[in-house]
Amino acid sequence: MTLDDNWFTEPCDEAGSAFSLRIRRRLHQEQSPYQRIEVYDTTHFGNLMVIDGFIMLSSRDNFLYHEMMSHPALYSHEAPRRVAIIGGGDCGTLREVLRHPEVEQVTQIDIDERVTRVSERFFPELCESNDDPRARLLFIDGIRWMQQAPAASLDLVIVDSTDPIGPGEVLFSEAFYRACHDALAEGGILVQQSESPLLHGDILQRMYRDMGAAGFDHRRSLFFPQPVYPSGWWSATLARKGRPIDGFREQDAAERPFQTRYYNPEIHRAAFAAPSFFATLVGGTAADTGD
Amino acid sequence: MTLDDNWFTEPCDEAGSAFSLRIRRRLHQEQSPYQRIEVYDTTHFGNLMVIDGFIMLSSRDNFLYHEMMSHPALYSHEAPRRVAIIGGGDCGTLREVLRHPEVEQVTQIDIDERVTRVSERFFPELCESNDDPRARLLFIDGIRWMQQAPAASLDLVIVDSTDPIGPGEVLFSEAFYRACHDALAEGGILVQQSESPLLHGDILQRMYRDMGAAGFDHRRSLFFPQPVYPSGWWSATLARKGRPIDGFREQDAAERPFQTRYYNPEIHRAAFAAPSFFATLVGGTAADTGD
Repeated sequence: MTLDDNWFTEPCDEAGSAFSLRIRRRLHQEQSPYQRIEVYDTTHFGNLMVIDGFIMLSSRDNFLYHEMMSHPALYSHEAPRRVAIIGGGDCGTLREVLRHPEVEQVTQIDIDERVTRVSERFFPELCESNDDPRARLLFIDGIRWMQQAPAASLDLVIVDSTDPIGPGEVLFSEAFYRACHDALAEGGILVQQSESPLLHGDILQRMYRDMGAAGFDHRRSLFFPQPVYPSGWWSATLARKGRPIDGFREQDAAERPFQTRYYNPEIHRAAFAAPSFFATLVGGTAADTGD
Repeated sequence: MTLDDNWFTEPCDEAGSAFSLRIRRRLHQEQSPYQRIEVYDTTHFGNLMVIDGFIMLSSRDNFLYHEMMSHPALYSHEAPRRVAIIGGGDCGTLREVLRHPEVEQVTQIDIDERVTRVSERFFPELCESNDDPRARLLFIDGIRWMQQAPAASLDLVIVDSTDPIGPGEVLFSEAFYRACHDALAEGGILVQQSESPLLHGDILQRMYRDMGAAGFDHRRSLFFPQPVYPSGWWSATLARKGRPIDGFREQDAAERPFQTRYYNPEIHRAAFAAPSFFATLVGGTAADTGD
């Protein structure tokens, strides 16, 4: 069958696949200085944010992505006090990070202020912590910010970016990883969304290689469902400065002082389990592919 | 954008979502006595089998489903010798089951012989074990077969069925589960594909309740990616007769005498980790929701 105009469709060229959501109407559209931002009212997934034709998030399932971009990395670090989020303009990752009482300061650097303003209007639940005194929102170039960050001034860097095309492309580069490595303290963790394990093996391989070249001897990926992204299966890759990525503050995770819908200590352990084909995929480039 | 005729699209009404694959052409179509079977040549997912408009499997990603419908249940049982597969006409699950040397006999009961014949032609790799002397393929009513199976004559029942609409509907019923319970020996395991954890919570709740009512005190779900199914995130639910579902033959799984692309012992453990919302979903009905 062919879908009529009551659907928003995102084709994924490199996979020959497409994902569609039925919509009631478009709630918003604008061309920001950087990209085209749209918001749709869907019939079953709540509000939907689309940037340059690519689905960014829906009200219904963004909890999967935001929880898995934040909690595993935060609980993998002994004392994550100073956090930077590159991208993340919808503020969902920021909200999750700020749930951690150990965190003293979070700087979110997204080049496009309009994403945050649109999110405040159509995804207010994701922005409910934006006024937290520990949070600082900057709307400048994230790479430049990272290059100028004082050495060893961060415990955690979360790269919550778009795909490696358009404005997000430079965030998938050895130069950027090197800046992150410099800005991280010993034991600090970089975590980046790393696309679909099934569809984007080439991107993952390159990321492992580039992170390694930038000084991160230890890299490890975690896997989670994300229905609105191509293949419905997504990954995040952690890279750690000077220490392996193994173990986590399990007791703290079990006694977390906030609600989660997906994350828990069992899911933490489970997410790091690598499919057999993945070990082969990154085998030549990876330091920490499993236990 | 709207997709043109070079795509096969499956809308999922209850989710207001749709998944599409770009196709080169339709390779086959027929109306069997039970359902409409089509096969497409896709640009990136190999061959695609569609029944009554619903995607059954693709060459590219069926390994996820078939490995996870078989290996976790088989390695969870101490000595799975006698296996029945209800449905499963494409023979992919059968092939995985027959990789286990402990298995002495597998009976596959699919009501529609045409599915197997079409699979032999367009998915020959899935049918490569059909001539194994341990395999018996029957094309009759699976429920009736199960009701007539001798008591305690099976160690494992795998329900590899379509969704709970159409011919597959009766396989999601207390009466069928009761027949399985009778046919299973003590410690025997029933495993059934149980839809999307995100989209089909109602089906999962009902399944837990009905399995419990049929005598299965212990139920537990496992989760895995399945890109061509709605939401890209799927589940299988195990129910065990008289014993909890915990632990597995880990050493055997680690030393498995066959290749897998997804399954390994880490994935086995990981797959059973339940998202926080899932424990709430089945909390009132589940005996074994996690550790």
